[in-house]
Amino acid sequence: MTDSSTNMRLKLPLICFILEIILIILFGVLVQYDHDTDARDFHNKSHHDYENDFYYRYPSFQDVHVMIFIGFGFLMTFLQRYGFSSVGFNFLIAAFALQWATLMQGFFHGMHGGKIHIGVESMINADFCTGSVLISFGAVLGKTSPVQLLVMALFEVTLFAVNEFILLSLLGTRDAGGSMTIHTFGAYFGLMVTRILYRPNLDKSKHKNCSVYHSDLFAMIGTIYLWMFWPSFNSAVTAHGDDQHRTALNTYYSLAACTLSTYAMSALTAHDGKLDMVHIQNAALAGGVAAGTAGEMMLTPFGSMIVGFLAGIISVLGYKYLSPVLEDKLKIQDTCGVHNLHGMPGVLGAVVGAVTASLATREVYGGGLDDVFPLVAEGKREASLQGGIQALSLAVTLGIALLGGLIVGFILKLPVFGAPPDTICFEDSIYWEVSSPPLVFLSLWGPSIDSHSCLAPNPDPYPNPNPHHNKA
Amino acid sequence: MTDSSTNMRLKLPLICFILEIILIILFGVLVQYDHDTDARDFHNKSHHDYENDFYYRYPSFQDVHVMIFIGFGFLMTFLQRYGFSSVGFNFLIAAFALQWATLMQGFFHGMHGGKIHIGVESMINADFCTGSVLISFGAVLGKTSPVQLLVMALFEVTLFAVNEFILLSLLGTRDAGGSMTIHTFGAYFGLMVTRILYRPNLDKSKHKNCSVYHSDLFAMIGTIYLWMFWPSFNSAVTAHGDDQHRTALNTYYSLAACTLSTYAMSALTAHDGKLDMVHIQNAALAGGVAAGTAGEMMLTPFGSMIVGFLAGIISVLGYKYLSPVLEDKLKIQDTCGVHNLHGMPGVLGAVVGAVTASLATREVYGGGLDDVFPLVAEGKREASLQGGIQALSLAVTLGIALLGGLIVGFILKLPVFGAPPDTICFEDSIYWEVSSPPLVFLSLWGPSIDSHSCLAPNPDPYPNPNPHHNKA
Amino acid sequence: MTDSSTNMRLKLPLICFILEIILIILFGVLVQYDHDTDARDFHNKSHHDYENDFYYRYPSFQDVHVMIFIGFGFLMTFLQRYGFSSVGFNFLIAAFALQWATLMQGFFHGMHGGKIHIGVESMINADFCTGSVLISFGAVLGKTSPVQLLVMALFEVTLFAVNEFILLSLLGTRDAGGSMTIHTFGAYFGLMVTRILYRPNLDKSKHKNCSVYHSDLFAMIGTIYLWMFWPSFNSAVTAHGDDQHRTALNTYYSLAACTLSTYAMSALTAHDGKLDMVHIQNAALAGGVAAGTAGEMMLTPFGSMIVGFLAGIISVLGYKYLSPVLEDKLKIQDTCGVHNLHGMPGVLGAVVGAVTASLATREVYGGGLDDVFPLVAEGKREASLQGGIQALSLAVTLGIALLGGLIVGFILKLPVFGAPPDTICFEDSIYWEVSSPPLVFLSLWGPSIDSHSCLAPNPDPYPNPNPHHNKA
Repeated sequence: MTDSSTNMRLKLPLICFILEIILIILFGVLVQYDHDTDARDFHNKSHHDYENDFYYRYPSFQDVHVMIFIGFGFLMTFLQRYGFSSVGFNFLIAAFALQWATLMQGFFHGMHGGKIHIGVESMINADFCTGSVLISFGAVLGKTSPVQLLVMALFEVTLFAVNEFILLSLLGTRDAGGSMTIHTFGAYFGLMVTRILYRPNLDKSKHKNCSVYHSDLFAMIGTIYLWMFWPSFNSAVTAHGDDQHRTALNTYYSLAACTLSTYAMSALTAHDGKLDMVHIQNAALAGGVAAGTAGEMMLTPFGSMIVGFLAGIISVLGYKYLSPVLEDKLKIQDTCGVHNLHGMPGVLGAVVGAVTASLATREVYGGGLDDVFPLVAEGKREASLQGGIQALSLAVTLGIALLGGLIVGFILKLPVFGAPPDTICFEDSIYWEVSSPPLVFLSLWGPSIDSHSCLAPNPDPYPNPNPHHNKA
Repeated sequence: MTDSSTNMRLKLPLICFILEIILIILFGVLVQYDHDTDARDFHNKSHHDYENDFYYRYPSFQDVHVMIFIGFGFLMTFLQRYGFSSVGFNFLIAAFALQWATLMQGFFHGMHGGKIHIGVESMINADFCTGSVLISFGAVLGKTSPVQLLVMALFEVTLFAVNEFILLSLLGTRDAGGSMTIHTFGAYFGLMVTRILYRPNLDKSKHKNCSVYHSDLFAMIGTIYLWMFWPSFNSAVTAHGDDQHRTALNTYYSLAACTLSTYAMSALTAHDGKLDMVHIQNAALAGGVAAGTAGEMMLTPFGSMIVGFLAGIISVLGYKYLSPVLEDKLKIQDTCGVHNLHGMPGVLGAVVGAVTASLATREVYGGGLDDVFPLVAEGKREASLQGGIQALSLAVTLGIALLGGLIVGFILKLPVFGAPPDTICFEDSIYWEVSSPPLVFLSLWGPSIDSHSCLAPNPDPYPNPNPHHNKA
Repeated sequence: MTDSSTNMRLKLPLICFILEIILIILFGVLVQYDHDTDARDFHNKSHHDYENDFYYRYPSFQDVHVMIFIGFGFLMTFLQRYGFSSVGFNFLIAAFALQWATLMQGFFHGMHGGKIHIGVESMINADFCTGSVLISFGAVLGKTSPVQLLVMALFEVTLFAVNEFILLSLLGTRDAGGSMTIHTFGAYFGLMVTRILYRPNLDKSKHKNCSVYHSDLFAMIGTIYLWMFWPSFNSAVTAHGDDQHRTALNTYYSLAACTLSTYAMSALTAHDGKLDMVHIQNAALAGGVAAGTAGEMMLTPFGSMIVGFLAGIISVLGYKYLSPVLEDKLKIQDTCGVHNLHGMPGVLGAVVGAVTASLATREVYGGGLDDVFPLVAEGKREASLQGGIQALSLAVTLGIALLGGLIVGFILKLPVFGAPPDTICFEDSIYWEVSSPPLVFLSLWGPSIDSHSCLAPNPDPYPNPNPHHNKA
């Protein structure tokens, strides 16, 4: 089953060792503890222990960490035979990306006297950047080797840091929860990569591109953790005090409203009035994505719920009607449907953020205007201009993501990286020692079997190519 | 398998959209950020960021959130073919209930100048109220449509808020962890609902009302999360400082003692000296329920352990001996045995709280008496009277729960809500697109098969109706 | 399948009840709330609520709690038919051990006026001690009865507290994350126990000492939680402020580097260039173990990454080459390979700690030297001596662990404790009511089956004894 090109015995160790050794050297040369982390610095000035940024952000950091490693990792285990790779490659590329992101983000906006200063906030930002890479991973899930994924992460992290620098540092854009920098960027980058890596014969693996009963339950672990901790995600790097508080609350209500519209749309559009696990697992999260930019603003619970409500509708409609078009017409094979979960809701979030920003007034924000819109508060910029710049930032993000994905897609086509053949996509055993063959499913309650089954009632090795989780 | 009455294509979208739109409108009219969440308000006065309530309560909130969505959701996945519904309906009704609870609780005790003020504490309280609905869900698990569940949640949240208002605001009852308001209320409400929804022919689905090996492991995810985070649950809304600290500690030791008595009783009572997963999954949690009222009091670790120890014993005995009687004699079909996990331990917790309150003295509590028993501290009430009112509150709770469950049960009987027929209870495929039929189990190690198997050794579609998880 | 000796009907209840009643009595006599937990004490002095230790440590405590109950519990579910026992016995012995540890640790270093004072820090320490017992459990996994495990916990907790007292109190050793006190101690204690309990005929159960597809996914839940929360583990009891911050950060980077070296080594050494789940599940965590001692020191991210990088390499090599030797030559049947995950990385962590300590200077640590090396800061000890004492502490730990394991191993050999026979090891059904026999696996994609399968392609009750997870 493994031919020499997909054999990882030398390729994977080589790239892992080279990358890690480079990382270690660069960390040795460039990286220092920040003021709240360094023993001497923190004790140098008089302040209280509870003022250390650790206590403001570490609980949120751990929630974000769970989203990155459990949330993304298990969300992708829905495929019947790709659980090891979903969790395992997620683990590998995240562990690499967070180190590389520390350097890239530090290089662009964390330098102090020639050194990159790190602490809990840089750890959160590194996790955020990693999240963007994992979104792109979702688009190419099942069709790439771990070496390809590491190469993709290497470039994507770099471009992420560039885009983030342009938005946050040059343009003064607000995007605390990353509707643009994380979700829009990760989604369109990944969509372009998967477009370049288009496989016309992917239907040879179509019987594996679907879920089984227990794999959908494992995926729900990912979904629920992402859903629960999204308030922490959006609020993790907002300003201390009311800002973190408000962002968490806005996201909480956006997600709750999104869940109801997702269930409604799923029953309305899916086969025979039944709920579709694909929608529940994914679209219910769109409310978190869409609250990523405006979450820290005075969006109000009312506004948050409207945003979440719309995000859920858009996302389900995307899974149902748009994804098949994207695959058939545009040749975009988007395994996890990241366009529906991160792409469109990310754009929605950017637009909502632009509108909300343009409406900001001193009357509404009071002294808090300095936290949320410092340039407006300082009189350097009108709120309407801030709104315009937010909208411009979306365009910049889309441009960098698509162009970057184009280039990186072509790089990943190099045969040396060991991509799987069309016949063995969505299959763990090509890169993992797998302890058992797939389960056999037999029909016990005959009439209950629907046509979306991954495995047909009779134990056919290549069942009905009409898989449940095929979004195209 | 789906006839028109259970088809959700119109019913579910209709109720979801109507409910969510009403919620959004009411939030728009009534709801405002509270002082610690609003940008202008928080910056209006001089205080430090670390004094924002967010930092006192948000970590506990997230633990509670995990209990509601992962804990309750996965605890109910023990059924072999009801995992999608357990996690998925839990998700849906919780997302609705927390929004509705924000309004109902706010209406009764969060109004400021005609507006409901919300922040992290109201988010915790909304999750608490949601927990009560999920307890009731456990009683009717497998026998209700999602529309019925949303209707139940609509009414139960309202009654919960009424009962909570009577106890906490009118009577001055202390119940920080909700032994009465959450557990007793949710359990007896749900038991009455399931009584009214009694299905004489439920044994037609009995072969599905049982667990399989992996479904029991998924359920253990729920159990362990509930167990670990119960200290956060009980302490989430207690007063800042020693109160939160003490409540968490008391609950921790109550749960630890409960676990040992649960294992002891399970081996003592179960078949052939073997441990029964039903007991471990449920009874080991009774110590958290029973510490819900007295947890914030000076119960001492010693007292907490005694309470937990007894709760575990009572709970296992309930599963073993009382549940069959409730089903046979009182026609109460309690799928998850919520009477044993939430009902009796909740009553025990209320009694322990009443006794502990009646023993409160200024000598023991010092200045902390103002936090725990403000009415006693202010001299408005003797400790013994406080104890009496705690006991009265239990009676009030039982009354409202039983009467409310009676009425709501009859409402839920309306055929329009699409309840499943007796032959297709405990089955995901009636409301979900299911990707594969049930697994087939064959005997590999013949002698190891016990008579409680969900599926008999030979792959019989309707196996031995002697299920493992049937508590009746 | 159960003969009288392994029947737990009387043995398990008896030991649980006796232990719990003794615990309750001792708690009643000896244990008190500490200053930050007691209502009167905390209100006696003037300080702010946010200065309560609860807010510094409770989020970390909950992360540690998740590691103990979900992390360890699910990490051990990799065995195909031992999931109930892995999670369930983990749950039981942890619930006992944390109570007993409270007393033993309190007796040795928490006495105030004849009473043991407890609060969030003692809760963390109790969880730490419990972790050590669970490491030893990993060595004997599948081969012991729950009664044996409780007896082991009883003695191991006691010896842990003795060793901890010698190190932390008498020698002034620094070991915040427990490379020595927790990991080295737990691993070598467990290895000695499993050596004494050597079963020459264990190969009769060898067909069960392996994983299946879904059991490996459940195990990844444990792995990922351990990995994510290890920064909280190592920082949970370090000093407030920069110390907690720095320790978390160091551990984060150590783990990230370890993950890359683990994947590299796994592909390099495993069959056919494929990744081995055993390595990913375990060796990727070695970076957390190895940062346990030096994590709070000024190790720098650079140093942390080197340590993690080496730990991953050592750990994979141990699984691949050393474990078989330990089993064949030294008769150490180490089910989970704790020597590779906790033993060697723990020793590495101790050595790194000794070296880092010996290099400590006032110049680097500034005022923080008082936190990290109080004896050096006070001038009572040179840094080089501190380093020497750290090294000595490793020797002391190894000595106590090995001697303790020897004695406890012989105690556990008493037949009265109901150990399973050689033919029914690694099997839940001996101590649990199991609802279904094992799954049958049939070959659907013939060529993908590798020779490490737990179950051979044809449903053979006693398949190829060449299991995936057999580390020996």
